[in-house]
Amino acid sequence: MNRREERRSRRRESRRGGREQSSVAIEAIKPLVNKLPLTEVLTEEGIDTIHRASMRLLQETGMLIIDYPPALETFRKNGAKVEGEMVWLDEDTLMHFVRQAPSTFTQLARNPANNLTIGGRNLVFAPVYGPPFVGDLDRGRREATIEDFRNFAKLTYMTPNLQHAGGTLVEPNDIDVKERHLDMLLAHITLNDKAFMGSVTHADNARDTVTMSEILFGADAIRENPATISLINASSPLRYDDRMFGALEVYARAGQAVIPTPFIIAGAMSPSTMAATVAQQNAEALFGICYAQMINPGTPCVYGSLLLNIDMKSGAPCFGTAENALGLYAGAQMARHYNLPYRSGGNFTASRIPDAQAGYESSGTMWPTVQAGTNFVLHAAGWLEGGLITGYEKFILDLEICGMMARLVNGIGLTDEDFAWDAYAEVGPGQHFLGTQHTMRHYETAYYQHTVFNMDNYEKWEEEGSEDTYKKANTIWKRMLKAYQPPPLDEAISEELHAFVEHRRAEIRAGKPRTEWKR
Amino acid sequence: MNRREERRSRRRESRRGGREQSSVAIEAIKPLVNKLPLTEVLTEEGIDTIHRASMRLLQETGMLIIDYPPALETFRKNGAKVEGEMVWLDEDTLMHFVRQAPSTFTQLARNPANNLTIGGRNLVFAPVYGPPFVGDLDRGRREATIEDFRNFAKLTYMTPNLQHAGGTLVEPNDIDVKERHLDMLLAHITLNDKAFMGSVTHADNARDTVTMSEILFGADAIRENPATISLINASSPLRYDDRMFGALEVYARAGQAVIPTPFIIAGAMSPSTMAATVAQQNAEALFGICYAQMINPGTPCVYGSLLLNIDMKSGAPCFGTAENALGLYAGAQMARHYNLPYRSGGNFTASRIPDAQAGYESSGTMWPTVQAGTNFVLHAAGWLEGGLITGYEKFILDLEICGMMARLVNGIGLTDEDFAWDAYAEVGPGQHFLGTQHTMRHYETAYYQHTVFNMDNYEKWEEEGSEDTYKKANTIWKRMLKAYQPPPLDEAISEELHAFVEHRRAEIRAGKPRTEWKR
Repeated sequence: MNRREERRSRRRESRRGGREQSSVAIEAIKPLVNKLPLTEVLTEEGIDTIHRASMRLLQETGMLIIDYPPALETFRKNGAKVEGEMVWLDEDTLMHFVRQAPSTFTQLARNPANNLTIGGRNLVFAPVYGPPFVGDLDRGRREATIEDFRNFAKLTYMTPNLQHAGGTLVEPNDIDVKERHLDMLLAHITLNDKAFMGSVTHADNARDTVTMSEILFGADAIRENPATISLINASSPLRYDDRMFGALEVYARAGQAVIPTPFIIAGAMSPSTMAATVAQQNAEALFGICYAQMINPGTPCVYGSLLLNIDMKSGAPCFGTAENALGLYAGAQMARHYNLPYRSGGNFTASRIPDAQAGYESSGTMWPTVQAGTNFVLHAAGWLEGGLITGYEKFILDLEICGMMARLVNGIGLTDEDFAWDAYAEVGPGQHFLGTQHTMRHYETAYYQHTVFNMDNYEKWEEEGSEDTYKKANTIWKRMLKAYQPPPLDEAISEELHAFVEHRRAEIRAGKPRTEWKR
Repeated sequence: MNRREERRSRRRESRRGGREQSSVAIEAIKPLVNKLPLTEVLTEEGIDTIHRASMRLLQETGMLIIDYPPALETFRKNGAKVEGEMVWLDEDTLMHFVRQAPSTFTQLARNPANNLTIGGRNLVFAPVYGPPFVGDLDRGRREATIEDFRNFAKLTYMTPNLQHAGGTLVEPNDIDVKERHLDMLLAHITLNDKAFMGSVTHADNARDTVTMSEILFGADAIRENPATISLINASSPLRYDDRMFGALEVYARAGQAVIPTPFIIAGAMSPSTMAATVAQQNAEALFGICYAQMINPGTPCVYGSLLLNIDMKSGAPCFGTAENALGLYAGAQMARHYNLPYRSGGNFTASRIPDAQAGYESSGTMWPTVQAGTNFVLHAAGWLEGGLITGYEKFILDLEICGMMARLVNGIGLTDEDFAWDAYAEVGPGQHFLGTQHTMRHYETAYYQHTVFNMDNYEKWEEEGSEDTYKKANTIWKRMLKAYQPPPLDEAISEELHAFVEHRRAEIRAGKPRTEWKR
């Protein structure tokens, strides 16, 4: 065996062993299946009206693809009308490609017990994505570092309430922007064993993501099922750019999942009315999905929506509003109409700290998110200040809501046992049920057990220091970080991952073009 | 004209005049109609299963009516099986009476522009009901007084986000419990011009409520449409008492609306499983409604639900949980099944101050409340510590959510104007819509305008003192109370109301039996 063969053989072995070990420290996730009838805000006719408006936008108004001739060429070759950087697409062409996207797919996780089905009635929570700042009670807001990134990777690993590792948990500003994707990927892979997201900041970064996934899972395995899922933002209105379409292209060719997501602040990046906003979002999402299918038919795609509305007075984005929820619900219905998995929502707030406003707005997004039947919920924990801050305490508080939602989607059981006939036989009218056999049987599983919300009465609460939830969450994340232990990772894989990262870091620092990793 | 005739004549005149004047200072309410498809958690089959379980509870387990022989006699006369204080009721008898309750009705308000339709797709928000304490940022928690009551009556009058005046805004502990209902009613009538709730603490207090309503509206008018709506709590499980059924009887005879409401902390006052809890709640609510119809067929009734779950560790009630929401949704479906208006929800929290927990839990109740199609939402503003505290700041914060919900229920408009075709013609892909003609046309009405939530970025927020929402709400309620001006009330009516109150106060203090008011 040469060095390469040896590494491969150790890798194969370790994948089995490593996976078994990794489920010891922290329990594997419990997949969530949404059994509830879903909430809808559009009739069938309304869905059709929105669809037709989107088709009109794509055919008459058109889409802009900036600084990326290869995509223009791909669209032209596939039947679109292209002039300069503008693309016009007819319904038949668009739908021909959109229909090739699968309705569900499986994303691989390092711990195979954490593999995720995305689409259908499945529900996945992932942490916040993208904030340049972190915030906590002790130190307020500050620039995020790689240490913060690692901290949130650890917290994400430890909680049963997030099924996905997420992506850019924070921007690690203490590492050069050209190479920080390597450190982020390494943190996800080594500190957590849940499914993670890929880098989209450059096509080369997407390539690095694919290579590291190949090292971790094997090149064949990730062609069969995607090992990464990546966020492809439209720069709304009706526009994609080279950076995002460049990354999308790399992922599509490698069979990796993508989430084309219009990021729309209604009133600014779309008209102020919700029908136009939803139609525009629909056009943009489908356009991105269409492109992925043109590159590689069958590429797993999630229909993305990040829909806010502007505060007409200040120009700031608003979160957790009724208008946002209506857009979120409508988006879910559109995605289902096309038989596509849906990404939206999260624990959104405009607030800078986890105060009452943050709570109201976060729940005001998460309830609609889950009730809409959303499949992939990015930003499910940690979001503050419109996504500019990853909050340590906010992260902990949001987990409570994710935990509750896991109960919500189970709905109401209607078996004989659920009707508790023996309990009524045991205690008559006017008597409490605390001591019944039925309660004893259901004691531990009947209700979600809170970990940070506090139900104490005023006296007890005052006696114990009148802590608000902000303070309480502060002690919890510190305790969790102290208790953290990494899931075991095979040394051969770890070694190769680190070798690759150092190889790429050297290339980047030397300003050399990217070379393929020889395995 | 003798004094009585003169008073009547002045009253008639003043009712017209007074009503016109009263709408000057503060705008009349805008009735809310829920146009959304409603969220459901039960299938048709599930609804039927719950119905049958409730019938079994009423027929086999039975209901307890304590210390109130007249009700036992009424049930016996109408075909129920009665033994001691136990009542067993078959489905045909129950449904015969339940069917006589109207599906919608109108509640009168002093300002007729504030009259309310209750039932169908109508949505009404009323403030918190019952707390013995008040709380604010400056002074913490303390016993509530009549001054607090008056403050909340004023705040309720001033906000466009509450359509109803509510009832026991706080318990005014500085007034003897035997007579405080008089002061509360007087405050509702003189400080506000919205529809209000009646007293249920004693049958005589219910009679006083009816008399004061007669003085305000005229005896005939309140027989045509109820002037009051009153909360009749079951003492679950499967039990009503003399106090509540005594008050219900007075109101039913006078054609006044009642809300029979099981107050259930699941796991204690019902089995821990949700199916049993919803079935029991259904049995209890229908039993109360049945009794009202036995007393006076056609009595306006609202199907009430106050369903929480216990924290199995501490025994404390939990709010804003998934389990609560499932019960709330199922309750709404049951009420609709019987064609009855539904009361549930509110801005619930277990928290003692308006911190993040309070926000998460409140939104976690209000979104399901509205999406369930609830018609009458008691506790829509001010609730803290499981209903023990009426919070000044919490009241202000909750109003923000009520305001948002008014937008939610309008759904998404799908006219050509909503699709903003001219805006897309005006600005192309990649351009913002802020300056378009379409945005100008919708500028003021497009989105809910926040009054207390703050969208400022971190820098601006820090510069202005890093206030959390708790602090911000503190300045708002103070400013509102300073600006308060009472809606004009005709002097003759005011004089008679005060005369009646003093007459009754004297009777109560002298320990004399209640005498009818000679008008």
